[in-house]
Amino acid sequence: ALVAAMEPLHPADIADLLEQMEPGPRDRLIALYGSEFDGEILSELDESIRESVIAALSPEVLTDAVRSLESDDVVDLLEDLDEAQQDAILEVLERPDRVAVERALSFPEGSAGRLMQREVVTAPEHWNVGEAIDFMRARLDLPEQFYHIVLVDPRHRPVGHVTLGKVMSSDRVTRLADLQEDSFRTIPASQDEEDVAYAFNQYHLISAPVVDEDGRLVGVITIDDAMIVLSDENEEDLLLLAGVGDESIADRTSQIVRQRFPWLLANLGTAILASLVIAQFEATLQAIVALAVLMPIVASMGGNAGTQSMTVAVRALATRDLTGANAIRVIRREVMAGLLNGVAFAVIMGIVGYIWFGTPMLGVVLGLAMIINLVVAGLAGVLVPLVMERCGVDPALASGTFVTTVTDVVGFFAFLGLAGVMLL
Amino acid sequence: ALVAAMEPLHPADIADLLEQMEPGPRDRLIALYGSEFDGEILSELDESIRESVIAALSPEVLTDAVRSLESDDVVDLLEDLDEAQQDAILEVLERPDRVAVERALSFPEGSAGRLMQREVVTAPEHWNVGEAIDFMRARLDLPEQFYHIVLVDPRHRPVGHVTLGKVMSSDRVTRLADLQEDSFRTIPASQDEEDVAYAFNQYHLISAPVVDEDGRLVGVITIDDAMIVLSDENEEDLLLLAGVGDESIADRTSQIVRQRFPWLLANLGTAILASLVIAQFEATLQAIVALAVLMPIVASMGGNAGTQSMTVAVRALATRDLTGANAIRVIRREVMAGLLNGVAFAVIMGIVGYIWFGTPMLGVVLGLAMIINLVVAGLAGVLVPLVMERCGVDPALASGTFVTTVTDVVGFFAFLGLAGVMLL
Ligand SMILES: [Mg+2]
Ligand SMILES: [Mg+2]
Ligand SMILES: [Mg+2]
Ligand SMILES: [Mg+2]
Ligand SMILES: [Mg+2]
Ligand SMILES: [Mg+2]
Ligand SMILES: [Mg+2]
Ligand SMILES: [Mg+2]
Ligand SMILES: [Mg+2]
Ligand SMILES: [Mg+2]
Ligand SMILES: [Mg+2]
Ligand SMILES: [Mg+2]
Ligand SMILES: [Mg+2]
Repeated sequence: ALVAAMEPLHPADIADLLEQMEPGPRDRLIALYGSEFDGEILSELDESIRESVIAALSPEVLTDAVRSLESDDVVDLLEDLDEAQQDAILEVLERPDRVAVERALSFPEGSAGRLMQREVVTAPEHWNVGEAIDFMRARLDLPEQFYHIVLVDPRHRPVGHVTLGKVMSSDRVTRLADLQEDSFRTIPASQDEEDVAYAFNQYHLISAPVVDEDGRLVGVITIDDAMIVLSDENEEDLLLLAGVGDESIADRTSQIVRQRFPWLLANLGTAILASLVIAQFEATLQAIVALAVLMPIVASMGGNAGTQSMTVAVRALATRDLTGANAIRVIRREVMAGLLNGVAFAVIMGIVGYIWFGTPMLGVVLGLAMIINLVVAGLAGVLVPLVMERCGVDPALASGTFVTTVTDVVGFFAFLGLAGVMLL
Repeated sequence: ALVAAMEPLHPADIADLLEQMEPGPRDRLIALYGSEFDGEILSELDESIRESVIAALSPEVLTDAVRSLESDDVVDLLEDLDEAQQDAILEVLERPDRVAVERALSFPEGSAGRLMQREVVTAPEHWNVGEAIDFMRARLDLPEQFYHIVLVDPRHRPVGHVTLGKVMSSDRVTRLADLQEDSFRTIPASQDEEDVAYAFNQYHLISAPVVDEDGRLVGVITIDDAMIVLSDENEEDLLLLAGVGDESIADRTSQIVRQRFPWLLANLGTAILASLVIAQFEATLQAIVALAVLMPIVASMGGNAGTQSMTVAVRALATRDLTGANAIRVIRREVMAGLLNGVAFAVIMGIVGYIWFGTPMLGVVLGLAMIINLVVAGLAGVLVPLVMERCGVDPALASGTFVTTVTDVVGFFAFLGLAGVMLL
């Protein structure tokens, strides 16, 4: 009855439901499903629980489920499984499907070759609309969904494509070549999927043919799959910036503890570094305990301002809006913004410091330290991600730790150092 | 010559180039373009510089540019302009286009009605493939791109849709109704565009008809536009979490200063709050200056752990992976993870504190404060966004400030408070 009640749900929603359940009830629900279990559910499932769901399926159900999938979805399913599970699934595929899947798996993980589906509709470039329609009516194995006919030369290299809308609204004698789209572009099979998602979003592609090193057609990528990559890449950046790796809401406590520990450990290292700076000024702190009360403010403001600049820079690098062409302009802008906001907060904090502790000079020290730290924050916030990117490191990965280390160290050093010179 | 050299560039790339230029050279390049300026460039431009580019175009060039756009792109262009500019552009549109655009603008900003294009291909549900093809061949005003034929009942309510691939591969006598897609769903014109983007990504939609309150067809949304919304929403969350509003890399210094100031001011407020907590323990700090050296470590670790939990929660709320159904499980998991990591770091810091300052009890205080703060961080990190969402506030907007305030206050209070009790 429960399974019947879930019948009208989309596989993606059923997958979400399974992700939200505890492992015990989840396995029981899957057992209830039995042979009704849809292959689409498997490909919608988050990678973190796919393996355990696959393990809970009977071999017959798994075979049916996998056979019903398009080749790109089988690849997506297989790439996260261990080899024994991979082989078990490959074995049950029909021969042409198995060859296609193995071909795709031969491309590096995260490449266009892994993202493409083998099922493509092609036509020789000299065909006309009538020939194309008759050909398609005669074909039995057309892809579930397709939006373009890819025009190929005799060596099977894509030379253009025609939307189905144009084909359908033209006379049978019109040449396909005359209906080609301007926006046509091919994607190398070795291209990083992040670049694929960028191209789809930038050029509003709906589908694009994938070619091997010789320019020959090997498959096609469709926008729905590019959209998933775009969303995953955005999620990755968001989580990396917060010091979280590839984590899912379905993960167990032990997984997230192990996952987050190294990031916290790195942060501990930088926090100790900041403490070592403070330790240099023990005598100053002993003399004026008010400094201990105020010093976290300078560090906190610097950390926040640096995070602002850094996040804008990391995002702009991901969307290719920050390049060599405007890097200098952006750096200058961030430093100037740091200076202007620094002056504003120096005035505010100078007044607060004076009112609170009644020492005018303490306000001046606080204000100067604020200006220095906000300028440094603006500079580090944009330089660190730029340098990371230049060095081939993901700027989302490590920028945060570096930037806040810089603002902590500079903040404490500037504030306590100036205090030592000007107040003692 | 420069304009000729840019000829092969996609309008999206030309727009990116204009965004990266300084205002002076940018206006000169636009003047060079003259009547060659493509309307697509305008719709690709970031909103932050659209107005100034439009102002740099001659009225004739602007008219040509706008007339060449699809209705959804005109709407996107108009919605950010002031009324005088809006009226100027509306005036040059042909009457049916103007009506469509005005209709779309009557829906709230950020709704499906603003995102849809009016151009739709429909067919009565009783038609067969032959009738549909003949009708399309006879129509002159088909949309640039379309992927489905929407089946409508006599009252013009969409009842299903057929992909062009199915139409083209079926015999002329096949009924369209027999070729319908399972995945068909309509979108209410008043729906938030964020929900639209979610539906496209979740259900892998390619296009979906938009309906008014009476269920009548008013337009269609295509996946390329939904993909842009998804990317923009992800960007919004990323920037909001870092305390940055709607900012662009093309903004001037003065704009980003004004933009970031309020966020830094809010942070200043919370930093002062933390300082007030520290101020309660001046006597303790005076007695043991080592506490001033170590206290930022406790606060920093809490802030980092809280940000980890919070970011995971905010993302999971955005992707609907965190709901009422699994909230309790996620809260329990985060608290447990905070406890386990807290114990691990308590041991590490206890040892570090003892070695550094030679006082075993100082190590114990540090460790206990660490455990307390990491547990609170896990709890606050997931509770704050959940409560925000429940109250109808964007969890990405304000969660960060709240969470780090909690971890700062708790961190300083626990560490200095315990020190006062156990060390003095
Ligand atoms: Mg899901
Ligand atoms: Mg799929
Ligand atoms: Mg995968
Ligand atoms: Mg990647
Ligand atoms: Mg696919
Ligand atoms: Mg990335
Ligand atoms: Mg752009
Ligand atoms: Mg568009
Ligand atoms: Mg807009
Ligand atoms: Mg929104
Ligand atoms: Mg999904
Ligand atoms: Mg559009
Ligand atoms: Mg949002």
